[in-house]
Amino acid sequence: MKLAVVGGGSTYTPELIDGFARLRDTLPIAELVLVDPAADRLELVGGLARRIFARQGHPGRITTTADLDAGVDGADAVLLQLRVGGQAARLRDETWPLECGCLGQETTGAGGLAKALRTVPVVLDIAERVRRTSPGAWIIDFTNPVGIVTRALLDAGHRAVGLCNVAIGLQRRFAAMLGTEPAELHLDHVGLNHLTWELGVRKGGPDGEDLLPGLLADHADRIAAELRLPREVLDRLGAVPSYYLRYFYAHDEVVRELGAKPSRAAEVAAMERKLLALYADPSLDEKPALLASRGGAFYSEAAVDLASALLGTGAGPGSVQVVNARNRGTLPFLPDDAVVEVQARVDGSGPVPLPAPRLDPLYAGLVGHVAAYEEQALEAALRGGRDRVFRALLAHPLIGQFDRAAGLADRLLAHNKEYLPWA
Amino acid sequence: MKLAVVGGGSTYTPELIDGFARLRDTLPIAELVLVDPAADRLELVGGLARRIFARQGHPGRITTTADLDAGVDGADAVLLQLRVGGQAARLRDETWPLECGCLGQETTGAGGLAKALRTVPVVLDIAERVRRTSPGAWIIDFTNPVGIVTRALLDAGHRAVGLCNVAIGLQRRFAAMLGTEPAELHLDHVGLNHLTWELGVRKGGPDGEDLLPGLLADHADRIAAELRLPREVLDRLGAVPSYYLRYFYAHDEVVRELGAKPSRAAEVAAMERKLLALYADPSLDEKPALLASRGGAFYSEAAVDLASALLGTGAGPGSVQVVNARNRGTLPFLPDDAVVEVQARVDGSGPVPLPAPRLDPLYAGLVGHVAAYEEQALEAALRGGRDRVFRALLAHPLIGQFDRAAGLADRLLAHNKEYLPWA
Amino acid sequence: MKLAVVGGGSTYTPELIDGFARLRDTLPIAELVLVDPAADRLELVGGLARRIFARQGHPGRITTTADLDAGVDGADAVLLQLRVGGQAARLRDETWPLECGCLGQETTGAGGLAKALRTVPVVLDIAERVRRTSPGAWIIDFTNPVGIVTRALLDAGHRAVGLCNVAIGLQRRFAAMLGTEPAELHLDHVGLNHLTWELGVRKGGPDGEDLLPGLLADHADRIAAELRLPREVLDRLGAVPSYYLRYFYAHDEVVRELGAKPSRAAEVAAMERKLLALYADPSLDEKPALLASRGGAFYSEAAVDLASALLGTGAGPGSVQVVNARNRGTLPFLPDDAVVEVQARVDGSGPVPLPAPRLDPLYAGLVGHVAAYEEQALEAALRGGRDRVFRALLAHPLIGQFDRAAGLADRLLAHNKEYLPWA
Amino acid sequence: MKLAVVGGGSTYTPELIDGFARLRDTLPIAELVLVDPAADRLELVGGLARRIFARQGHPGRITTTADLDAGVDGADAVLLQLRVGGQAARLRDETWPLECGCLGQETTGAGGLAKALRTVPVVLDIAERVRRTSPGAWIIDFTNPVGIVTRALLDAGHRAVGLCNVAIGLQRRFAAMLGTEPAELHLDHVGLNHLTWELGVRKGGPDGEDLLPGLLADHADRIAAELRLPREVLDRLGAVPSYYLRYFYAHDEVVRELGAKPSRAAEVAAMERKLLALYADPSLDEKPALLASRGGAFYSEAAVDLASALLGTGAGPGSVQVVNARNRGTLPFLPDDAVVEVQARVDGSGPVPLPAPRLDPLYAGLVGHVAAYEEQALEAALRGGRDRVFRALLAHPLIGQFDRAAGLADRLLAHNKEYLPWA
Repeated sequence: MKLAVVGGGSTYTPELIDGFARLRDTLPIAELVLVDPAADRLELVGGLARRIFARQGHPGRITTTADLDAGVDGADAVLLQLRVGGQAARLRDETWPLECGCLGQETTGAGGLAKALRTVPVVLDIAERVRRTSPGAWIIDFTNPVGIVTRALLDAGHRAVGLCNVAIGLQRRFAAMLGTEPAELHLDHVGLNHLTWELGVRKGGPDGEDLLPGLLADHADRIAAELRLPREVLDRLGAVPSYYLRYFYAHDEVVRELGAKPSRAAEVAAMERKLLALYADPSLDEKPALLASRGGAFYSEAAVDLASALLGTGAGPGSVQVVNARNRGTLPFLPDDAVVEVQARVDGSGPVPLPAPRLDPLYAGLVGHVAAYEEQALEAALRGGRDRVFRALLAHPLIGQFDRAAGLADRLLAHNKEYLPWA
Repeated sequence: MKLAVVGGGSTYTPELIDGFARLRDTLPIAELVLVDPAADRLELVGGLARRIFARQGHPGRITTTADLDAGVDGADAVLLQLRVGGQAARLRDETWPLECGCLGQETTGAGGLAKALRTVPVVLDIAERVRRTSPGAWIIDFTNPVGIVTRALLDAGHRAVGLCNVAIGLQRRFAAMLGTEPAELHLDHVGLNHLTWELGVRKGGPDGEDLLPGLLADHADRIAAELRLPREVLDRLGAVPSYYLRYFYAHDEVVRELGAKPSRAAEVAAMERKLLALYADPSLDEKPALLASRGGAFYSEAAVDLASALLGTGAGPGSVQVVNARNRGTLPFLPDDAVVEVQARVDGSGPVPLPAPRLDPLYAGLVGHVAAYEEQALEAALRGGRDRVFRALLAHPLIGQFDRAAGLADRLLAHNKEYLPWA
Repeated sequence: MKLAVVGGGSTYTPELIDGFARLRDTLPIAELVLVDPAADRLELVGGLARRIFARQGHPGRITTTADLDAGVDGADAVLLQLRVGGQAARLRDETWPLECGCLGQETTGAGGLAKALRTVPVVLDIAERVRRTSPGAWIIDFTNPVGIVTRALLDAGHRAVGLCNVAIGLQRRFAAMLGTEPAELHLDHVGLNHLTWELGVRKGGPDGEDLLPGLLADHADRIAAELRLPREVLDRLGAVPSYYLRYFYAHDEVVRELGAKPSRAAEVAAMERKLLALYADPSLDEKPALLASRGGAFYSEAAVDLASALLGTGAGPGSVQVVNARNRGTLPFLPDDAVVEVQARVDGSGPVPLPAPRLDPLYAGLVGHVAAYEEQALEAALRGGRDRVFRALLAHPLIGQFDRAAGLADRLLAHNKEYLPWA
Repeated sequence: MKLAVVGGGSTYTPELIDGFARLRDTLPIAELVLVDPAADRLELVGGLARRIFARQGHPGRITTTADLDAGVDGADAVLLQLRVGGQAARLRDETWPLECGCLGQETTGAGGLAKALRTVPVVLDIAERVRRTSPGAWIIDFTNPVGIVTRALLDAGHRAVGLCNVAIGLQRRFAAMLGTEPAELHLDHVGLNHLTWELGVRKGGPDGEDLLPGLLADHADRIAAELRLPREVLDRLGAVPSYYLRYFYAHDEVVRELGAKPSRAAEVAAMERKLLALYADPSLDEKPALLASRGGAFYSEAAVDLASALLGTGAGPGSVQVVNARNRGTLPFLPDDAVVEVQARVDGSGPVPLPAPRLDPLYAGLVGHVAAYEEQALEAALRGGRDRVFRALLAHPLIGQFDRAAGLADRLLAHNKEYLPWA
């Protein structure tokens, strides 16, 4: 089996490699190709990756290349984890929306739209090359905004699934709190990527007993603290929102906080420099502790689970996982071809969403609003033009005002000219 | 034919009477009963109403009563135009939301929720009495928030239609600008009550030529000024939003403006005092000019059109009018039993929505969000409880934040205790 | 010696009585008159006051009266602790400024101006009667806004001193933290009433060793928590601001918080009802524990110290206390006749401010700005008129914008009509 | 007579040259040196300057140099009009404060502080070189923030006067409205640079009849429109604020507007490119019309007036002009060594402020607050350090909050590292 990781030069890659090494029985990789145009970076990361495989006795071969076509040629699955424009673009995404009194964040709101506009054309080009060189390969997209990118891939006819670590992260946290095995817990995880709520925590299977009421009774304070939301939110909802919901439920407070401190992107960039310095040490043969604060925990577990189910290497066909896939009636108020983030049964033919619990109007109204924004955003990403950008911004529930949308549109275009040929 | 007007003591009633007098051929009223608990007011308004009928030679009889059951007994149609709590409650609706940085308005946002909570139980009680005394009567609801009130009536099995003057007002303005007869123009009017856009202005019938592009090319400045929106809004949308959309598209600016001046309710209350003083003059036998600035233009025309179509007295069955009625698939992203405001063919069996043009996601996302809020709002109005009030507030796209919803919920309850037995 | 307390029916009075009882050696009161127009309240409070004196064996006589002239006749000192308009007016002061996006607080900002406008004429009338009946009596003003009220009294030629409990409260807290006697600590307390900073904490006397650096090193977290300010504030300033500075240093956050919860005045009103119910119990002969949460701690100690120094009954003439008195060059950037809150040497001829440490421009700029506002506010209180109210609002550093000042002026007048004959 | 213009390569210089040419009788220049490190720009501007002198028959010689010492050697007066960091730094000054919800402007608020920090050390170095090479030369500072820069120069013992075009611009506008000669009008212009009010418009001399009431009665609408303030501001103040007061009186509205459109610096940069292209045309020998929209009108008239009075070449000694100079008791609430912007009598020994009308507390409070900020700002510019920057920001009346000051301090330092060696 051959896997390719596009954006393999990311400082995050050793996390992924560590997971592949630990979970080799589930996903027996013969060849792993790290593809990245940044040769220096790729060499450092690739070297550490090989040392990790070696130390853990993984028999697979790890290669690196800047040549995308060569790298994905013959792959069974291609993982996308690129960042068009790098941390510098992220820094800008987190900054200019604040000038208009709006959230600066790289996946939600105006910053998320900028990322979508930069990313969709690049991802579609990669996918087209994958289709040419390895027609049957699965594309697993980690690249944000995962919902919009996955929709773009599916609309263009690719074999693609979108993946995020929010659900697996909560599953792990809940399991620790409940003193049980993560695999025992199935989450009633419903919504869109980065706009989800855990409506239930089922024991043993998707129809198992719901442990959520007890979990909240015992651990609401801790969960709330980890999400940086007041405990009252959990009490009132009786559900656990993704921490991205903070950007909605406490929008103005977040904007104020962001205005009172330096950017997260600057922190990440500093951490990346440190990580790369560590990776350069030829005696390092495991992921360094510092990597844990980089974000993205449990991505490798989720990726291994998903790839093994798609490629038929896992414990059996039809395992249930949280993925981004076509709605197909799961959320009845959304079009069938919308992309939702829910539990799905995954096998070699792809994911099939399980029936989801009915979404309370309290959540459904917001989900429908954001889904409509995502439709406008994809339209803007595919066809360009200031007007489509403006409409996507106006369509976003966190923006919604003319003045703001106008100011944001100007800034988005000014800060992303090099990535938007039509701008 | 007998008509009853509940809330008939409103200072607005002479406008309605004037319309009934002018349009007597379309709606031949034999008896008109004005029902209102405010006896003083009712006497002044009733006197003027009779003098208007007399001057115009209308043969119908006008009576007044504080006894609801007697008033609606035997009516063919009952018009609801009441205001629970009067202008004092409206003043509060317009005030306390501002304390939380939110729009203070009597039909939109938190103020609109307060009005819904006060109004729905009263209207349902009235409707129940109508059903008992006059089982086949139609209920025509003018009472805001019309969308939520109409939904409450329909869910309880009443023969009800909701009516607003936004569409007829725009039809009249457009006709004047185009130099044509209002009856010639059919509006592609789509959305929810107070959340609509004119997507087309059809000449001659619902499928006629669309005059909107030309109308905007020639008159966009004037239309924008009347809506108090920048002209750019019309240029960008290529559609004409209801002026209530200003509360969304320019929310923060409106809040700032409201904070810089006294309340609209105080103005209306002052005007009402002046109007009642005029009505007391026994020589007055027409609606005074001042009434025009009271708001509610063309309500009587719309009411006559609707009642005549429902009661079969008009030019013929099946006339097309903008009303609030069950969705039944008209807007596919809303439940069938939602109440929407669209063009409908109306006859003795009630309104049947015409197929509506597809609503762009730019509008549909917001409509779905507000419709979900309305569902929560109706739930709170029917079942009560601070928690349901909080959830409805959080569900509103203009609120959406925990802090705000909490502060608003406290204030809503504190300011409406006397109308909310459960509070 | 005869003392009169105007506003003696306040639920706070038992705190004062308890202090008088405990500190009878410092201030040997022969007759104490509680003056209040609210007879019911006065009876309850007066009864408890007598029982407290009795239990503690205080020989003084306590009388009550609604007749101001009779009450103050022959008094050596008159304490003013009235609240024009009661808690209802306070509730309004805390509410309507929020409608304009401004702080709602009863002593600072627009609410403080409303209180000043209501209070100054009433206090001046009382002082005039005191002058007539007891020409040599000292007036000790607790009534907020203490700075403006004291200035009004002094400008009218009265023998008056303004008193606040912020300084004595901090002195007590610091003494507890340092494990020393409060009397050992002299605070370099500088600024205007409710706009002060402790620039030093001197041991043994006004020129003693400064313990503040050590205090901050050891207890900054605790002090910051009690002031509800981030610890960083103390670290950066190297001084301890009054907790009223939070309304400046964290203005927007406070406004957001106030919008997210019910009013403080409503809480106080509820507590007052509880307190009065307790006072009605004839077996109660000490201040109830609940009174501690009413605010105003250590007011009685401060009042006893001040009255004894003014009346020459204390340990000796010339004790040093923090009071509100004429500036006389203490803060060189303010006019000599401004009223400042600083340490002063007090004897029978009144307070004489000690030389104050130079105020850093970081504080002086704000102090000068607020002092200028106070001048405008007093002008508005004395002479009335919407225009003067508007100018005072515009002059306040927390307002400063035309739109806000206009909206606030309308609301201030609308909510205080009954207290402002010219409005 | 020799004049040197430091920053002479500015696109604005032709305006200055045009004024020197027109007013050659008042200021007979023998040699004019344009000093600028930007050689390309200097060549274009210098060429046009020479052609303007030639066309108008001015006998003076114009030279250009990048060598500061050579350029200022032997000069009688040195004009400073440099911009450290150019339009790029201005663009940043106008941008990052918006991220914290604060005004982004290059002379007021946080942006103005950044400019002060970059500029003061550069200007002091230039002044030191002027003192070495031409000990008796006058330094005329146009460079913003003029108040802080002038104070820095005076504190370092230089012969310096600060100059701004706000007063002369208003004088010209008022003269046009009144149909009189500008020289006939003396303005009661009081405050700090960019924080002034015209309290009177005197005819014939500083003690002449005040025409302001009539001017406002006849022209308030027009003046208000030009200042972009509501007419109500003029009616209420009875004075004409500088248009920079809009940043205070309408702060939040300005922030909203700035967030809704692209930056002013980007506009200016585009205009500069156009101007330089025009200047390159060897047939151009007058200032192009486009230059009028560049800002800075009447600077040359003001500069000629000031230089001629300082150098004794004008109509006579002791002419009265609005300048930035030491306070010396003019505004009694400010220290004597503060720099104020008022009318002054200017002769060869420098400016001596005329007695100014008493400043109403409505203005004085704000002036004192900003003067205190300026003191902190200069301290930060001279001594550096994040803490001093933070304190200056907190001291500014448009900032004043901890969160904001902290966020602004981080951004100011991050965006100005290359100009602040200590950062």
